[in-house]
Amino acid sequence: MNTSEPKDALEGSVVRRLRRLLGERLLTDPADRWAYGYDNSRQQALPQAVALPDRHDQIVELVRLCAQQGIPLIPRGRGTGTTGAVVPAQGGIVLSLEHMRERLEIDPDNRLAVVAPGITNQELQEAASEHGFFWPPDPTSSAVCTIGGNLAYNSAGPRAVKYGTPRENTLGLQVVTGTGDTLHTGTRTTKGVVGYDLTRLLIGSEGTLGVITEATLKLTPLATAKRTLQATYSSIDAAARAVSALMAQPLTPCALEFMDAQAIAMVRDYSDLGLPADAQALLMIEVDGSEEAIDGDAERIRTVARTRGCLAVELAHTEDEVARLWRARKALSPALRNVAPKKINEDVVVPVSHLPSLIDGLQALSQRYGIPIVNFGHAGNGNIHVNLLLDPEDPRQSAAAEACLSEVFSLVLGLGGTLSGEHGIGRVKQAYVGQELSPVALGLMRAIKRQFDPHGILNPGVGLPEDPSPD
Amino acid sequence: MNTSEPKDALEGSVVRRLRRLLGERLLTDPADRWAYGYDNSRQQALPQAVALPDRHDQIVELVRLCAQQGIPLIPRGRGTGTTGAVVPAQGGIVLSLEHMRERLEIDPDNRLAVVAPGITNQELQEAASEHGFFWPPDPTSSAVCTIGGNLAYNSAGPRAVKYGTPRENTLGLQVVTGTGDTLHTGTRTTKGVVGYDLTRLLIGSEGTLGVITEATLKLTPLATAKRTLQATYSSIDAAARAVSALMAQPLTPCALEFMDAQAIAMVRDYSDLGLPADAQALLMIEVDGSEEAIDGDAERIRTVARTRGCLAVELAHTEDEVARLWRARKALSPALRNVAPKKINEDVVVPVSHLPSLIDGLQALSQRYGIPIVNFGHAGNGNIHVNLLLDPEDPRQSAAAEACLSEVFSLVLGLGGTLSGEHGIGRVKQAYVGQELSPVALGLMRAIKRQFDPHGILNPGVGLPEDPSPD
Repeated sequence: MNTSEPKDALEGSVVRRLRRLLGERLLTDPADRWAYGYDNSRQQALPQAVALPDRHDQIVELVRLCAQQGIPLIPRGRGTGTTGAVVPAQGGIVLSLEHMRERLEIDPDNRLAVVAPGITNQELQEAASEHGFFWPPDPTSSAVCTIGGNLAYNSAGPRAVKYGTPRENTLGLQVVTGTGDTLHTGTRTTKGVVGYDLTRLLIGSEGTLGVITEATLKLTPLATAKRTLQATYSSIDAAARAVSALMAQPLTPCALEFMDAQAIAMVRDYSDLGLPADAQALLMIEVDGSEEAIDGDAERIRTVARTRGCLAVELAHTEDEVARLWRARKALSPALRNVAPKKINEDVVVPVSHLPSLIDGLQALSQRYGIPIVNFGHAGNGNIHVNLLLDPEDPRQSAAAEACLSEVFSLVLGLGGTLSGEHGIGRVKQAYVGQELSPVALGLMRAIKRQFDPHGILNPGVGLPEDPSPD
Repeated sequence: MNTSEPKDALEGSVVRRLRRLLGERLLTDPADRWAYGYDNSRQQALPQAVALPDRHDQIVELVRLCAQQGIPLIPRGRGTGTTGAVVPAQGGIVLSLEHMRERLEIDPDNRLAVVAPGITNQELQEAASEHGFFWPPDPTSSAVCTIGGNLAYNSAGPRAVKYGTPRENTLGLQVVTGTGDTLHTGTRTTKGVVGYDLTRLLIGSEGTLGVITEATLKLTPLATAKRTLQATYSSIDAAARAVSALMAQPLTPCALEFMDAQAIAMVRDYSDLGLPADAQALLMIEVDGSEEAIDGDAERIRTVARTRGCLAVELAHTEDEVARLWRARKALSPALRNVAPKKINEDVVVPVSHLPSLIDGLQALSQRYGIPIVNFGHAGNGNIHVNLLLDPEDPRQSAAAEACLSEVFSLVLGLGGTLSGEHGIGRVKQAYVGQELSPVALGLMRAIKRQFDPHGILNPGVGLPEDPSPD
């Protein structure tokens, strides 16, 4: 869609300095560079060079060189983001952090981990689990996505409903700012009020304020037992009432996932999953805790989930049954790909009680624009993945999709929601940010950006929309 | 100690404009003003005027007037802070937010509350509990301290070990910046990644970046059952091992409070509490959960607390027993006041595993300087209240106390800790901030301060130390 032409090559003197700094850790061949010019959006652009440092001091020198030369620098994990935030649309050097893997220290006594940014989420989880701990953020891409990327996007996942996002699970950061200065934020402790909270400011800033070169993460003890339930409802309202009821009682589920009628219809076409014929909404619910308490807890959840309009609540008793119950949810992504190779996937959030209004509104938009919309996601946070399914054969649909999307965001904001719960802004949602953030907020954010990155080299054109009237 | 002379009165024209804006909500009589010139530190200064607005728009106008005239504005809750952060040492207008009480809305379906800043912590807890919820931050002063103050200081309390501080329990803020602009931060949802996280930046900024006029708070369901345990140990090391063991297992206590040998000796002198004669450290442990699981959970905690060196673990079975077990901890504050009317109370934090080194180091400093030091606090967070007991009859002790305090902070930072876990910097700890924060961090924080408050009117002289070499 937005594939840019290859930018001019870097000046020879710059390449020589980069080569001296990085040796073989610099890619200049176009064939090599293309592999670092994309993410999981449909955007791609050719970087002028790719840097693959494995040490903090190399990054310091690289940032200083880029600041001096005014070269854009695009920090990148494994490219699993969905917003084009790591696509070098303005040219520049992609700074791949995948080789920053030296440190993965688990400190169980202090419930923390110190991690280099190129460690994957799964590697961290495996190391932590040996000590009986985990790090709560669990994006779908956890097998390959990096901790640095998780922090840059504030990526969460299903467990956030009980355990929070990276902002609630990070103690401190080591960062290289846009001037090449090394900044340490936060503490190694779970309390600390000395100075302003720069840790959370950097988390979710999409590489626009600094390059994270190390993180101190708060670990949480692994629960020893888990139970899985699947509940089906005759209407979206009934399911939403169940979500509210589940969130209003003391036992917070560790996953509370949702599929609407369109999503159910789609997986039902795809394979027979034994769901009730009149199911209009489905909840996947997981609870975790101690072996002694878990069965009582699961029964309590089952009782709460049985609101008016509930068709069935199935509680898995074996691993096979757990797998069977998850099958409908897991069938969704391949089904979506099969049915609609071209789709727009948003991850809006509304207050939980407004989920029925959101889904009703989305159905109305779907009918008005003639675009199928399939919704599923993290109901406990009100975080819904809204999928507009486009016909790749119909080029006129693009304009309709744009107009529909704008109305989706208006609907969300009108319900007190936010444009994105975990994907972020990147390059694809900038046009809509002004609908959510006021000029006062944007002005302060731009001022902060200028302080952290006075030369404007860190991921330019990503995150905050350009100031239409810069001073 | 640091009592300032009354500042000159405000210009007549300014007073007239303030009177027009605030009517009777402006105090100009010195006798009235004195009551707003102190906090729970030993500092006091006479404000030039006191504003008592009850509406957001009045605060907007007040800030604009102060910005235009260059008059310091000191936001104040109920003055329960301990760092002099609300003492108008540079003169100016104290902005008391105690009458900003119009809004206290509990939204159980969305697990949130929308609260005006003058509502007290206890009022919020009572309103939330009617719906089965609570807001985790619980400072000792919760009966009188305000939500605005809790947010300005990031005040926590014992429950933070399980439920976090205000930074983990706040969704969004309405703020008036130093230019009189109204800023909305965050969302009404538990996920949101649109723009930089200004919510956490403002929390804990001690009124130096903006005046909080409304907050959207994340509520947590009340547990239905709680159990209280008291464990005593033959050494501080044994108690610290128990803390580590308790924090390494899946069941996180909702309170894990600590008293050292000096603290035990002090309450033992004060009244007979039936503690073992050789108790050198004491832990108060609380667990919460469901009625069905709580007794099993309490037994598991008891087992874990019985590390080598444990003398006894008592588990309360009745309300009377709970009160009896808490008696030692509750006797501490009056005992401290009786023994040492003059004391320096710090709230340092170290990683939990370094608690023994911290206490050992503090005992060595106590002996070297001839100053008794009593330690207690929130062990689960490594947050220890360090009390230097001074002899009010000995004026020479002040210099020794200053030197000792500086060494306390060096000890804490050497152990990977932080100067303050919940009290903050205010006016009393600024001299030490440079030991913890680097020039890079301080430079960015000062730049952020200038963006939020370009006229430097919001709580000048508080928080960040003055820049020795401003540009």
